Parts: sequence; C-alpha cells; structure tokens
Amino acid sequence: MRYELYYWSSIQGRGEFVRLALEEAGAPYVDVARRKNGEGRMLALLGDEALACPPFAPPFLKAGKRIIAQTASILLFLGVRHGLAPASDTGRLWTHQLQLTIADFLVEVHDTHHPIAANLYYEDQRPEAKRRTADFLGSRLPKYLDYFERVLESNPSGPTHLVAARLTYADLSLFQVVAGMKYAFPKATARTARRYPHVMALHARVATRPRIAAYLESERRIPFNQDGIFRNYPELDR
Amino acid sequence: MRYELYYWSSIQGRGEFVRLALEEAGAPYVDVARRKNGEGRMLALLGDEALACPPFAPPFLKAGKRIIAQTASILLFLGVRHGLAPASDTGRLWTHQLQLTIADFLVEVHDTHHPIAANLYYEDQRPEAKRRTADFLGSRLPKYLDYFERVLESNPSGPTHLVAARLTYADLSLFQVVAGMKYAFPKATARTARRYPHVMALHARVATRPRIAAYLESERRIPFNQDGIFRNYPELDR
Repeated sequence: MRYELYYWSSIQGRGEFVRLALEEAGAPYVDVARRKNGEGRMLALLGDEALACPPFAPPFLKAGKRIIAQTASILLFLGVRHGLAPASDTGRLWTHQLQLTIADFLVEVHDTHHPIAANLYYEDQRPEAKRRTADFLGSRLPKYLDYFERVLESNPSGPTHLVAARLTYADLSLFQVVAGMKYAFPKATARTARRYPHVMALHARVATRPRIAAYLESERRIPFNQDGIFRNYPELDR
Repeated sequence: MRYELYYWSSIQGRGEFVRLALEEAGAPYVDVARRKNGEGRMLALLGDEALACPPFAPPFLKAGKRIIAQTASILLFLGVRHGLAPASDTGRLWTHQLQLTIADFLVEVHDTHHPIAANLYYEDQRPEAKRRTADFLGSRLPKYLDYFERVLESNPSGPTHLVAARLTYADLSLFQVVAGMKYAFPKATARTARRYPHVMALHARVATRPRIAAYLESERRIPFNQDGIFRNYPELDR
C-alpha cells in the first residue's frame, strides 16, 4: 500500500514532520499536492461532504480507506506501524506527549511572524511581530529547549534519543525544530546553542542517518522559505 | 487507585477537560493543587530532576507511578480506560484527532486576549487583542464551529455525538468549548448560535448528564474567571 500525504505543495510546514517519518521508515508515499492538479485534489477531499471523518486542515494522510489528520495523530499512527515508536503503551504515549509539546512550540514559532492573524501579511503586523518575537526568544524558546535538553539528559538509556535507546518520530521532529530555528533565527540559535549540547547533537546525528541524509539532498525536501512556519526576517532575529 | 490531577488551582483552563472526563467516568481523583500546599507540590513535581518522563507544563495526571502530561494525551489515556472512547483503534484515533483540533482552538481563544505574550497583562496588549479577536470572531471561530457542526452532521450514527453512538471525551470537550464561548463572548455566541444547532444541542445535552450536572453544581467546578483561557472582556465581544 502506498500512503498518500496531503499537504501544501510549497512549504515544509507541519507536513514536514510526516514526510520525515515516512522517509526514515522507507515507506512508499505520494506527496499528492506536489503532483499535477494535486492541490486541487487536496482541497476537493478537504471539502468532501461525504466523508464521515473529515480532516480540519492539512496535513492529512490517506492509508487505504482511512484518512487521518492532525500531525501528531498521523505520527502516532505511523510510529506504531513503522517502528518509529516504542512497542509498549507507556513508551508510545510518552513519545506522543513529546510530539504534542513540539506541536505547541510550532504554534508559537508561527505566531512570531503572525501574532494578529494568519489571514494578514507579515507586513501588516510587523510591530506586533517584533514584540511577540522578543518574548518568544527571551522566554518561550529557552523554556522549550531547556525542556528537551532535560528530557535527553534524563533518559535512562542515555542522551542519544528522546525516548529509550532507539530513534522515534519525536527525534525526527526535534531535528526539524532545530533545522527550522537555524533557518529562521540563525543569530539567536547560534548564541544559545552551547546551552543545549544534547539537542544540537541530536540534530546533527539525525541529519546523517542514511535515509534522512538522502532525503535532505533530494528534490523531495522543499527548501525553507518565507511562506512556512519558520521564516527568516532578520529584523526579528536578535 | 486514585488519580492525582495536577493543575492550577484557580482556573478551569486546560485542566477542566481532564476534570470533566474524570467526573463523567466517576473515577476517584484528587485535584492536588486545590489542597493545602498543593500548588507547591505541583511545582516541586514539575521541577523534579529525578523524573525520567517530566511534564512540560500542567495539567498532568499521576496514575500510580506514571505521570502523563498534555491534555489530549491524558484524555487518550483515560478514554481507553473508562469507556470514554471507542474500543477500536480507528475510533480511538478519530476521537483523539477531534481533541487535537479542540486543543488548537484553545490556543487561538487564549491568544485573543494575549496575542503578544502570556507573560504580559492583558492591559499591556489591548489594541493587539482587539485586532486579533476581530479576526478570531470573524474568521477562525466560524471555521472551527462549521467543522464541528459538519462532524456531527456527518456522523453515520446521527448528530447526537461527535463519534459513533456513544459519549466520548471529545463530546465533553466540545461542551466545555461552548460553555467557555458563552462566558467569554456572549454576544458573538448568541448571534451565531443558530448556525450551529447540533453543536449547541450537544452542549445542552452534556450539561444534563447526571454526573456532569452534579459536578457543575459542586464546588469542584471552579467558576469561569478573568485568569483562564476563556475571559470576558466586553470590549472584545462584538
């Protein structure tokens, strides 16, 4: 069975967390919206009144007849199927809990450049974006990174992975968070990186995994750009 | 076994979604932070360096030796144990997916009064709150409510519940969302209620369930107030 991933064709966004899991798993998938007329197909499915379990928004994944939405929920589903989460219930829920904290972080990163409305341009909310980003970099970012550093440090199996002794989708997602921060806030990230040695080492290590490295080099990886969650506005990066 | 719920003692907040599930399940629990020195105990546990699986923030639930954080994750755990989610994997994941969409909604409600920083007072971000709320009420709220109305309408078992033919924690959470909206934005909610007959009927029905009705009348239910996620600032309610 080939999965069908539905997500906006021009950005990494939340879809990227699913892409990374599919790539690491070596699971066959089609990135539907990047095909010809694909975004139209995605929007048609999103508006399909016949669906009993409709998605609220992309990303969503079609697995046979099932359609699963919400990034963390998709990863919960894929993790079990592809060995990207522990086999035990306790381990799975812990991995998922970490993913939900990453999901919270992503909302906050997005709102640094869109504190007033996703419907408005950045240029229409620039002073507000500056204030919000100052709080984000000064207070929220350290809170999250302190947390993930602590989780790595506290892992009884050692600081190589977030959960136990094997790679999970939470590791892939934390890799993506660091990659995004390096793109969006290179100065702020460089300045604080030494406070988070385990987080930074995890990022570097995930990037060298054969399938991830191949993916990052491929055209399947959409470059970071100014339409995604992570955007580089130098005036915000202090 | 008695669960221990850890959440701020003075607000409904995200903890309320867990309280509602525990109450409907008739599960014995202690609302730890509301006991003497309870908030201190909560903060001590939150900072406990010895925890292998530390919570990022309240709410978190202690179930025997396990500590589970993230509201949606706690509900995933409780739903299975207490018949507040379907028995099938597919049904469980769908219920959880709905809960994650409610979680997204809550972030947006919170940010209507705190668009710049949770660390600042409302009074320090009032013009921004007005702009953000206008977008929320005009664009985001209808998007979410249209969605939940559609989910109820599309339910093959009828529009009484979000999932199949039985109450789930997602129903309890949607009840709480409507209750919160009625408190925070009474005018906007009254104006649009007739567009969401199934959502409104679900809210009314959940409120009359014996255990929920008893809970809402009890002192265990903290009243809505100006410190929670849902706050009533009449100047924002248009």
